[in-house]
Amino acid sequence: MSTLGVTAPQGFSAAATSAGLKASGKPDMAVVVNDGPEYTAAAVFTRNKVFAAPVKVSRAAVSAGELKAVVFNSGNANACTGEQGLHDAQTMQRLTAEGVGAEPAQVAVCSTGIIGDLLPMEKVESGIAAVVNQLGDHGADAAEAIRTTDTIAKEVLVKGDGWTIGAMGKGAGMMAPSLATMLVCLTTDAKVEAQALQTALERATATTFNTLDIDGSTSTNDTVIAMASGASGVTPDQDELDAAVHEACAQLAAMMQSDAEGVTKRVSITVEGAADDEQALNAARTIGRDSLVKTAMFGSDPNWGRVLAAVGMADAEMDADNISVTFNGHTVCEYSGAVPGARDVDLSGSDIAVVVDLGTGGEGRATVRTTDLSHAYVEINSAYTS
Amino acid sequence: MSTLGVTAPQGFSAAATSAGLKASGKPDMAVVVNDGPEYTAAAVFTRNKVFAAPVKVSRAAVSAGELKAVVFNSGNANACTGEQGLHDAQTMQRLTAEGVGAEPAQVAVCSTGIIGDLLPMEKVESGIAAVVNQLGDHGADAAEAIRTTDTIAKEVLVKGDGWTIGAMGKGAGMMAPSLATMLVCLTTDAKVEAQALQTALERATATTFNTLDIDGSTSTNDTVIAMASGASGVTPDQDELDAAVHEACAQLAAMMQSDAEGVTKRVSITVEGAADDEQALNAARTIGRDSLVKTAMFGSDPNWGRVLAAVGMADAEMDADNISVTFNGHTVCEYSGAVPGARDVDLSGSDIAVVVDLGTGGEGRATVRTTDLSHAYVEINSAYTS
Repeated sequence: MSTLGVTAPQGFSAAATSAGLKASGKPDMAVVVNDGPEYTAAAVFTRNKVFAAPVKVSRAAVSAGELKAVVFNSGNANACTGEQGLHDAQTMQRLTAEGVGAEPAQVAVCSTGIIGDLLPMEKVESGIAAVVNQLGDHGADAAEAIRTTDTIAKEVLVKGDGWTIGAMGKGAGMMAPSLATMLVCLTTDAKVEAQALQTALERATATTFNTLDIDGSTSTNDTVIAMASGASGVTPDQDELDAAVHEACAQLAAMMQSDAEGVTKRVSITVEGAADDEQALNAARTIGRDSLVKTAMFGSDPNWGRVLAAVGMADAEMDADNISVTFNGHTVCEYSGAVPGARDVDLSGSDIAVVVDLGTGGEGRATVRTTDLSHAYVEINSAYTS
Repeated sequence: MSTLGVTAPQGFSAAATSAGLKASGKPDMAVVVNDGPEYTAAAVFTRNKVFAAPVKVSRAAVSAGELKAVVFNSGNANACTGEQGLHDAQTMQRLTAEGVGAEPAQVAVCSTGIIGDLLPMEKVESGIAAVVNQLGDHGADAAEAIRTTDTIAKEVLVKGDGWTIGAMGKGAGMMAPSLATMLVCLTTDAKVEAQALQTALERATATTFNTLDIDGSTSTNDTVIAMASGASGVTPDQDELDAAVHEACAQLAAMMQSDAEGVTKRVSITVEGAADDEQALNAARTIGRDSLVKTAMFGSDPNWGRVLAAVGMADAEMDADNISVTFNGHTVCEYSGAVPGARDVDLSGSDIAVVVDLGTGGEGRATVRTTDLSHAYVEINSAYTS
């Protein structure tokens, strides 16, 4: 049994292969199978109005709260591919179902990679035939196969009392991922109802993947799927389930932040003193997406004036004369003005915590995690397709 | 008489000096004086909730529809500077008024540069004393003195029938300027009412500076001021005035786009087929601010999939299966899918026109002008203060 990843919990098998979708020849297809005895499932998907064919197929499949398998490919997102793309996603679903002994409606499909190209279905079909014949304790291989620009495979394990959650992921942020897509697959041997799993997943994503915002862009393919086999025979209560799912998601989100494209700094933006949590989140996102704030972070520049200029455009109530800012615990701005020594705060380390108080006296609070805007980000994203 | 800029129309004088606000020793203070016989004025200002002291002072001054002078400094924005900053802006206003023979309430103040530092008022006071004693046909010097990261001074002239508009500007975009601030000063010898001038200015900025969006950030100091001397004795009708003010603003906006920080591409984003113009503008802004679209432009990459992924997050009605995209007139996406040859479109030139049809069948249409996201942008903005 693996010590990490999707085949660590009881009742799951996986496999991966190189189907030739990536020009590099690296592994690019995987399947994760729930071997039961239960087949409970839950999922959350991208909120982009332009969503990919596999999202449409998977959303329908998981709606009944049951999945036996998820098939993955990297190298091609099967997004913006019209009727043919939908047909291809359905073919992936059907072939995987046949291979693992399931109904098509019990299989979800996740694709990541370039947008707008049709899948090379001959290669995909060979890939599915290969993975369904190699099922075993190969979660690590599956985590490798879903990588695109990720520099490391991402696997976690969270232990409950007599049950476990394993998970793999790729990409950098649900609400606002960087290049291509965030895909996550969680597996657990807990014996839980689909609604309990869906609740835990929605609660966890709200404060983990949904507040990880690398570059403000949101993919057409983002998908987080959880499958529960019930193989441990243990039913955690909702609080325990919530805590463990949150922990798995938080660990993966932290790995995605550290591995984001071109990152040299991990930046957390906390907004306090807002009228409510939603306004705090609006303000934190606005700061976290501001190019001038992000380039200052890259330059290790304690330029709090850019933070104020950014937050002033946020859809949030604030006292414009009573905003305060700290960088890594050092107060740099009070009453919307400079604090002596503010320009000397050392931000040369790789972690920067920004805390902004909007001065309304309210209890609203939220944190967004982002990265700096670096030369490497520009390089990776200007040279991706051509 | 100058052939360009703020002293080209009859009835205006200007001067500039090096007051020592810029470490480089380059010119950093200027004054533009309306010598009458009329002193009509209009202005628009930043919509940022965090706005600088000179904006507060100038907003109050222009509210009566009359100005005799505008004093400018670069090198320091006098933003986020609290009560002292407001006092300093008022001192600039009062000293300039004394120097040019006006009431303080007839003088506007414009500052641009670093946020959060107090103005070195001894230098500022010497600078004002210098410029008010050197007034003459020095519009070109004033345009030089308001530069920050601008690589060229920006001056224009628009001729009416017996009257003219001159203008100078710095920066890169009213709604969403790049580093620091956009400042514009228009002068005209037309004989017009303040309300007519304000109407013309608001109409012009809506489709010029307000749709120039370099990096989604909005300054604390953005200001566009127009002054009319009436010295030509000619009163254009509203249409003529609108057209000339629009032309002057459009020319300056084009110069700002070309001179934006780190720009290697001038990109126009037009959205058509929207339910209304406002939704078209939302969609165009969302595309124009997307880092993945902007890095693709830097890489001359016809990556229309990123355009679809971006527009899918816009607050605009769309038919997600019927979006089309053209790059420089070449159709690259129809029915939200690829057109053969789309990846081969040549975007190596410095101008890229993106047209997106949202497929709703509506008449809504808007254009936003932006730039690519380049290595130079990151370099300039990560090394600005420290």
